[in-house]
Amino acid sequence: MTISSPRPLEQRIADTRARFDADMDAWVATAGAGGPALVPLSFDWDGKTFVISTLPRSVTARNMAENGRVRLAFGPTRDVVVVDGVAELVPAGEVDAVADAYAAHTDWDPRRESEEYAWYRVTPRRIQAWREADELRGRDVMKDGAWLG
Amino acid sequence: MTISSPRPLEQRIADTRARFDADMDAWVATAGAGGPALVPLSFDWDGKTFVISTLPRSVTARNMAENGRVRLAFGPTRDVVVVDGVAELVPAGEVDAVADAYAAHTDWDPRRESEEYAWYRVTPRRIQAWREADELRGRDVMKDGAWLG
Repeated sequence: MTISSPRPLEQRIADTRARFDADMDAWVATAGAGGPALVPLSFDWDGKTFVISTLPRSVTARNMAENGRVRLAFGPTRDVVVVDGVAELVPAGEVDAVADAYAAHTDWDPRRESEEYAWYRVTPRRIQAWREADELRGRDVMKDGAWLG
Repeated sequence: MTISSPRPLEQRIADTRARFDADMDAWVATAGAGGPALVPLSFDWDGKTFVISTLPRSVTARNMAENGRVRLAFGPTRDVVVVDGVAELVPAGEVDAVADAYAAHTDWDPRRESEEYAWYRVTPRRIQAWREADELRGRDVMKDGAWLG
């Protein structure tokens, strides 16, 4: 599983983008007055931002409403991508288009649930990608919202 | 992968304990003034508490020093165990015994690194275990520090 030499930046960016396209779930960490929240949520990636959906009364939703700060983690613990991003509620007029794309990617349509879900767009500001200790150096692949490659 | 009927409590507890014994890494979420932190860390489980180790200057260490609140996640996103716990610094006199057990379980001994690592004991207060949506009900397997089974 371990590759002997650290991947160069371009490879990390390509692997990261491929994971965003292929994966269905991410770990979503938020912070509020009650401490850290952390749950797995399905996501859709449109090439620039992530869309996630959760119940408005969930701790995650309340934390995002409070401060908008989100950290997402993808992949197994030895092939990691982590994203620091800013969450915003998707405006009501955009929900249907966003939800269609989300359902196509995740095979789950929250609009069909009995409770009403809220929709959030997460814009990445920083992205890091590493496998094991030898890749900790050079793990930044996006800073200040811009890919480094 | 999906089992058609939700696992009963006793099975969830057994699966959860088996995962704590077998797994090497967990996702560690903490919260501080800067928002949420989330990193994968190796852990050791002694049957009652988790031991983790990180650099004292890391955001995770600073958050734990600030408020002691930790949320740990184990497993893939569709066979989840999450733990809300309280982190405390391991007293200096106990570090060697704790570090020996940690190194035996994780195959990594932070005492051999050039930088000095800090050691934390995380005591679980609440544990939840679920696979897919049909298992969200009944996901509590520990409350107030006591196994429910």
